[in-house]
Amino acid sequence: MAASSSFSPYKVHGAASAPNRELVSNDSSRFRQSLHSRSVAQSRWLSNVKSINGERWNGIRCQAFDVGHKPSFMIGNKFQLDDVIEAQQFDRDILNSIFEVTREMEKVEKNSPGSQILKGFLMATLFYEPSTRTRLSFESAMKRLGGEVLTTENAREFSSAAKGETFEDTIRTVEGYSDIIVMRHFESGAAQRAAATASIPVINAGDGTRQHPTQALLDVYTIEREIGKLDGIKVGLVGDLANGRTVRSLAYLLSKYQDVKIYFVSPEVVKMKDDIKDFLTSKGVEWEESNDLTEVASKCDVVYQTRIQRERFGERIDLYEAARGNYIVDRAVLSVMQKHAVVMHPLPRLDEITVDVDGDPRAAYFRQAKNGLYIRMALLKLLLVGW
Amino acid sequence: MAASSSFSPYKVHGAASAPNRELVSNDSSRFRQSLHSRSVAQSRWLSNVKSINGERWNGIRCQAFDVGHKPSFMIGNKFQLDDVIEAQQFDRDILNSIFEVTREMEKVEKNSPGSQILKGFLMATLFYEPSTRTRLSFESAMKRLGGEVLTTENAREFSSAAKGETFEDTIRTVEGYSDIIVMRHFESGAAQRAAATASIPVINAGDGTRQHPTQALLDVYTIEREIGKLDGIKVGLVGDLANGRTVRSLAYLLSKYQDVKIYFVSPEVVKMKDDIKDFLTSKGVEWEESNDLTEVASKCDVVYQTRIQRERFGERIDLYEAARGNYIVDRAVLSVMQKHAVVMHPLPRLDEITVDVDGDPRAAYFRQAKNGLYIRMALLKLLLVGW
Amino acid sequence: MAASSSFSPYKVHGAASAPNRELVSNDSSRFRQSLHSRSVAQSRWLSNVKSINGERWNGIRCQAFDVGHKPSFMIGNKFQLDDVIEAQQFDRDILNSIFEVTREMEKVEKNSPGSQILKGFLMATLFYEPSTRTRLSFESAMKRLGGEVLTTENAREFSSAAKGETFEDTIRTVEGYSDIIVMRHFESGAAQRAAATASIPVINAGDGTRQHPTQALLDVYTIEREIGKLDGIKVGLVGDLANGRTVRSLAYLLSKYQDVKIYFVSPEVVKMKDDIKDFLTSKGVEWEESNDLTEVASKCDVVYQTRIQRERFGERIDLYEAARGNYIVDRAVLSVMQKHAVVMHPLPRLDEITVDVDGDPRAAYFRQAKNGLYIRMALLKLLLVGW
Repeated sequence: MAASSSFSPYKVHGAASAPNRELVSNDSSRFRQSLHSRSVAQSRWLSNVKSINGERWNGIRCQAFDVGHKPSFMIGNKFQLDDVIEAQQFDRDILNSIFEVTREMEKVEKNSPGSQILKGFLMATLFYEPSTRTRLSFESAMKRLGGEVLTTENAREFSSAAKGETFEDTIRTVEGYSDIIVMRHFESGAAQRAAATASIPVINAGDGTRQHPTQALLDVYTIEREIGKLDGIKVGLVGDLANGRTVRSLAYLLSKYQDVKIYFVSPEVVKMKDDIKDFLTSKGVEWEESNDLTEVASKCDVVYQTRIQRERFGERIDLYEAARGNYIVDRAVLSVMQKHAVVMHPLPRLDEITVDVDGDPRAAYFRQAKNGLYIRMALLKLLLVGW
Repeated sequence: MAASSSFSPYKVHGAASAPNRELVSNDSSRFRQSLHSRSVAQSRWLSNVKSINGERWNGIRCQAFDVGHKPSFMIGNKFQLDDVIEAQQFDRDILNSIFEVTREMEKVEKNSPGSQILKGFLMATLFYEPSTRTRLSFESAMKRLGGEVLTTENAREFSSAAKGETFEDTIRTVEGYSDIIVMRHFESGAAQRAAATASIPVINAGDGTRQHPTQALLDVYTIEREIGKLDGIKVGLVGDLANGRTVRSLAYLLSKYQDVKIYFVSPEVVKMKDDIKDFLTSKGVEWEESNDLTEVASKCDVVYQTRIQRERFGERIDLYEAARGNYIVDRAVLSVMQKHAVVMHPLPRLDEITVDVDGDPRAAYFRQAKNGLYIRMALLKLLLVGW
Repeated sequence: MAASSSFSPYKVHGAASAPNRELVSNDSSRFRQSLHSRSVAQSRWLSNVKSINGERWNGIRCQAFDVGHKPSFMIGNKFQLDDVIEAQQFDRDILNSIFEVTREMEKVEKNSPGSQILKGFLMATLFYEPSTRTRLSFESAMKRLGGEVLTTENAREFSSAAKGETFEDTIRTVEGYSDIIVMRHFESGAAQRAAATASIPVINAGDGTRQHPTQALLDVYTIEREIGKLDGIKVGLVGDLANGRTVRSLAYLLSKYQDVKIYFVSPEVVKMKDDIKDFLTSKGVEWEESNDLTEVASKCDVVYQTRIQRERFGERIDLYEAARGNYIVDRAVLSVMQKHAVVMHPLPRLDEITVDVDGDPRAAYFRQAKNGLYIRMALLKLLLVGW
């Protein structure tokens, strides 16, 4: 959401109320300053791009994007969420507040046919690449709250080579038709460009390989919901830790909590990269690497399994074949897990969790998917009608 | 709908109240026993598959799927519909009850902008192959009753080879977003697998070449609506009787009624198969084959024309060309038909009914298509809110 | 909308009340006579086709389609709109009336979450080719008024070569599911055929290269909205005047007003064709051609820029390259424009308006796109519930 008026009703509280200051950067607070114009927002975006300096970032950009100034507008004691673009925009207080609303959303659904708090609001799902699962989750969330949806899964057509419209022109057209844009794009940073252009809120439903912030939120929410706490949690991240944006974002967000311990369990070829390890170390988060899934599973509150993503290996099928199948969560792994522990997975899964695990109450991955619905309901509510 | 709780509020009435017992089978009652778990349902599905013994069934599986035990849960005097998977799940009493609700639905539409009985309910149209006509009919039905829809016509993307998600995992995800699944699939039996997995109702909107139960229901409903009766009806089934699932299902359902006479009129190459003929004989339904459409038309209450399906002939265009055009319903055929008789067709039609027939009041095919809307409204109501 | 009953509640006022009679033709009044049957409508359509005599028309067919008889049914003092098929169906009085409703629609949106005047109505967007922008605009309009939408962007599948259903059969099926059809088609005249078949209203959302009447309406509406008048207006039409249907329709509609002056500014290869020039002359509209965009811009109330459409040049990329870039609206052009004047563009734009123009209050093109929403809201209201 670009601030399109020169007046903002929100009181801006400065860094004073920011509980955990991060590495300084001059860019990407998604909770905007109230008085910048669209052109300011655009030039900020351009400077963001430049600040990456040609480096290709695969996952989250921890240093480059850490939140430097207070990441929110406050209304009374609550912040005002403008857009949802990246996991890094959320601090612990904001996460807590979002989760509070999310828990309310669980009740809305239970009491449904129900709430009409978003009646009259229109969400545009502007998908530049199809992602049926994510799209249906957002559209369900909007409709569960009485809102309406405009759908497109072929948004590329808007800006076809033949016609050559700019992305920004497309956004300006779509914002005329709707009240909020949920965008999926094949290019990293597209959501941020959309938010800098649009005068309505934008939610990033995945851009390129970099960000999928609603997935990151639902993961943290699920851990709290299943285990009952986040401070002191022990989490094993398993599988493709090099390419998986979900595990990278999760590791980042877990650093907001106290006494967290993270285990990395992965084939050599897809190990967690140094940027995240260094970041965790700088935050005082304990982590270790292991190649013994069973031992890790016996100690963890959460075993977070991920799919080895064949599509990331390109021609190197040999590497893919070597990597997959190393660390499978099966009934044997389950048998060493603690009673209160859970298995999570961002889905879709292949065979990295065997189907005979599904029936165990500790298999939390379908509940986790369902939590995605509640998180999205909460975000839509917060962005459209506030607290 | 897999029974997901160990408690069911429905009283189960045993075979005592089943009015017309069929050939015994141990499998596919779509009106489930109340106390089976998902895994039981799954193993039942697997045993179904095995029971077919490698035989390829093109249309309905009369013997294999006849309803062996009471096909319903009763609430008071009414059954509880859990899923709609195949024509064979309906007996005469159930058909009558559905038709009663369908007649109410006709009035709902007339008094609309209208009823909101499905307000707050969300239907997912999970189409693994596009079928715009069927999809729009279901979505219209849902919206006419105040419900909402999540649409996907590229459901294959869910379980792409690249990502490799199982069909069951997809169903478990989608059931988290919606209250009912309407599924179209290219594989026979897919709807049944979905129903065995999902804890919400599933409607089969066509799976492979085998089943399209809502078409079968709307056909029988149209006959009763147009002619005023089903007992004693004389029906001519014309065209592609070998490949057309609609005529096979219709013949099956007509066997539930008294004193029915069926005429088969088709090119030699696409004659009605012996399984249906034997089944009708076993049920005491009179049938005969004829190659004189005019004579048959003069005696029938219903001339049910079908399209010769080119896509079933593969490379044998010669056979297709030989078959089509043999039996055309035109004004000459119309001229010998009785005043109260009607022409039906499942649509789309090619040239097997000439357009100059359209203006005749006995041309019932567009009314028949409209009845599909009412039937689907009735089923959605029955599955979501009951009687 | 084909008159499907032999009784019409509308009083038909004859030519007496037609304020500006046009060249006589015997065909295409989109405001139908009340007592014609579908077959009459169809034969009229066929005679239309014949009257074109093999000539290929690229844009509007001024002579062939001018409105010959009173183009409306009156209810009290208001006309009854049946379908929206082509720009030529609108006279000055009808335009004024539509714009009056459109202004009301602007307020509806402002006061939204809002009006439910189309609650219970169902619109089918039957798109035979994708046009995301147009589709979203119509669907937004419908939902802003409380209506519901059935969407298909692959309507071609309905009438696939494999299945061979006629267009008319498709329309008859879809009209059973919905209350109004919004159609996009790749063939000129398709919307008219649909309207002749359907007993519900049809809106043409673009058929072939010929008509896109809601674009024409929103253009005229935007001029009035931005400049405050239409009589006495000076408009510069710039860019591809040979292929652009929008500028052709706009020139046609402007001829309804007094003391209009039109300037044509275009590369030689895509000059405005003689049919429009002759038509304007016959109507007493002053026009001139110029190759000095700056001079024209300094005199006009409206600079209407258009994209040079590469897709119209086929293999002749050389001609395309020669044509584009000749007349760019940039800050230099803006600097000579009057303070009250505006720049318009039907979008999408390429580089024919530079992005540094966007921030100027005289850049009206995104407001123009937004007006498309209001025009479509007004038309949906008029077609579904009347005045």
